Amino acid sequence: MARKVLILTEGLSSPNTAKSACSVIRYRRDELVGVLDTTVPPQTCQGLFEVGGDLPVVNSLDALPEANVLLIGIAPTGGSLPAAMRELVLAAIKRGMDVESGLHEFFNDDAQFAAAAKASGSTLRDLRRNNERDVAKRQNISTNCLRIHTVGHDCSVGKMVVAIEVARGLARRRVDAKFIATGQTGIMVEGDGCPVDAVVADFISGAVEKQILAHQHHEVLVIEGQGSLTHPCYSAVTLGLLHGCLPDGLIYCYEMGRKTAKGADHIELPTIESQRELYLAMANTAHPCRFIGVAISSRCVEESAYLAERDRIESEWKLPACDVFRENAEPLVNAVLEMLKD
Amino acid sequence: MARKVLILTEGLSSPNTAKSACSVIRYRRDELVGVLDTTVPPQTCQGLFEVGGDLPVVNSLDALPEANVLLIGIAPTGGSLPAAMRELVLAAIKRGMDVESGLHEFFNDDAQFAAAAKASGSTLRDLRRNNERDVAKRQNISTNCLRIHTVGHDCSVGKMVVAIEVARGLARRRVDAKFIATGQTGIMVEGDGCPVDAVVADFISGAVEKQILAHQHHEVLVIEGQGSLTHPCYSAVTLGLLHGCLPDGLIYCYEMGRKTAKGADHIELPTIESQRELYLAMANTAHPCRFIGVAISSRCVEESAYLAERDRIESEWKLPACDVFRENAEPLVNAVLEMLKD
Repeated sequence: MARKVLILTEGLSSPNTAKSACSVIRYRRDELVGVLDTTVPPQTCQGLFEVGGDLPVVNSLDALPEANVLLIGIAPTGGSLPAAMRELVLAAIKRGMDVESGLHEFFNDDAQFAAAAKASGSTLRDLRRNNERDVAKRQNISTNCLRIHTVGHDCSVGKMVVAIEVARGLARRRVDAKFIATGQTGIMVEGDGCPVDAVVADFISGAVEKQILAHQHHEVLVIEGQGSLTHPCYSAVTLGLLHGCLPDGLIYCYEMGRKTAKGADHIELPTIESQRELYLAMANTAHPCRFIGVAISSRCVEESAYLAERDRIESEWKLPACDVFRENAEPLVNAVLEMLKD
Repeated sequence: MARKVLILTEGLSSPNTAKSACSVIRYRRDELVGVLDTTVPPQTCQGLFEVGGDLPVVNSLDALPEANVLLIGIAPTGGSLPAAMRELVLAAIKRGMDVESGLHEFFNDDAQFAAAAKASGSTLRDLRRNNERDVAKRQNISTNCLRIHTVGHDCSVGKMVVAIEVARGLARRRVDAKFIATGQTGIMVEGDGCPVDAVVADFISGAVEKQILAHQHHEVLVIEGQGSLTHPCYSAVTLGLLHGCLPDGLIYCYEMGRKTAKGADHIELPTIESQRELYLAMANTAHPCRFIGVAISSRCVEESAYLAERDRIESEWKLPACDVFRENAEPLVNAVLEMLKD
């Protein structure tokens, strides 16, 4: 049966609060029938999410009876299900809809959800559930596959979107490139990958390495980054991923105007230049690596400010720079193509 | 009932292969009745483990019928139970002995072990089991508690023992100091702590922070390090711990003669000087921090080589240095006392 996906963003329908929803709307539009939020009037997605055009936002499960999958469209800090979503999830399960969740709190472990799913025949898919138990071996890594990794200044600065856009841009140039998803949203988009932040800490680099080994028959892998090396909560995830995927080339991602760490307003971000040196130092302890481009998220500033920043970065960092939303990823795609020639 | 602990090291009775056993023998001797290894003739611990004096090594559960706890004395890469130990564990459970394990593979999840324990009334304690689900907040960190953290060149270079010896040395000097255990062996010794390498990656810094908040009424916390920032498998654990415990002072631990990463012989270790800079850079992104001493493990070299190395390090690093096994931890204890005066 064809998937007809309804995204749940109850009370959190904005680009900042429903990051997963926005990416699924952007990249899996073909499967979607709408978005469910009972706290707002029925309208189109574009107004609430700045993406999705006329895809409907509805305020009742009854409004889109053809939906057969409910997808949880948020990724909150800590990964628990907001209380307001609980009854809607339960109602969807009772209708026999499958439910897909990227939360840390697993739906299959919830007695009420599990019982309801058993009764209705619906399937609960916990995208972050994993049983990774292999340490990294750092062996049999192909030298014929170029590994590109997006890293960043902070959480939510575009690392996943940049990785997807670069992989798709390479494919359009007839390069055999694959996006390696490392978070629940990336997995929703790509259909495979590893939820690295949900892996037991001892096995995170090993879990990433397995993704590399499984896909290194491709010419290029573009590996989604997570968090940042200086984030107060998630630096372990960032380093385990960096050391597991052994990048040849890094793309630095940041957002103009971001001053403090996402989720920790009292923590100032380091300068992008000082952080660049940390990434280089930590990456090169594992594998020779350099930056090949910079992805600027300029959504909070005017175009003129963006263009000035882009020029400054290109001149000071001596690397191509662009905003893949405002423009496109071609400068970064070209940087990868240059690296392939080397 | 008083604990009468029998340590299981089946087929792995050496200082290198039974690290947990050696530390428990060193620090919890009062609870021990012996060590079980059916593959060697009955003898004393000292010969096999270089510690433990006349504590008996027996080759049958029948030899020490008073034992009421079986403690798994190994911590293998990957954390699975060796097949050779399985029947002995099961026999111990059937006798009604409690079993303590620091493996990643949980005994309570093993249907056969769980059923046997239910039948005999014994308790299975999985020391690495945790349900940590809080991200770090980096708030309410006391400025009245000095945090010292042992970090190192590689796995198994003495970080836990150095932390214990410094905490005990401070206590002898009437400083209110506590050892914060971060691994299963440290937890066996201290009776509390957090098995950080078994925490889901998103929550590792948060789990460490909880340990700090719970114990910062002490004057000094000495926090056990794990892995290294450059280890191919475990660097994520090391960084999550470093950023979760926000050390004021670091003690660098290394082993003379170690050339390659433990468990990955094809990976060369960086120089200790280059690694020192990585630790300083990564620690200082979170909290102002400096090295206060160096702990040298010199077990593989002659005393004269050790003494020359100690002099070289003290001169080049301008820090106190010592081997806490060969000598004692006093130079490091004094360095902490100096820091307390500042």
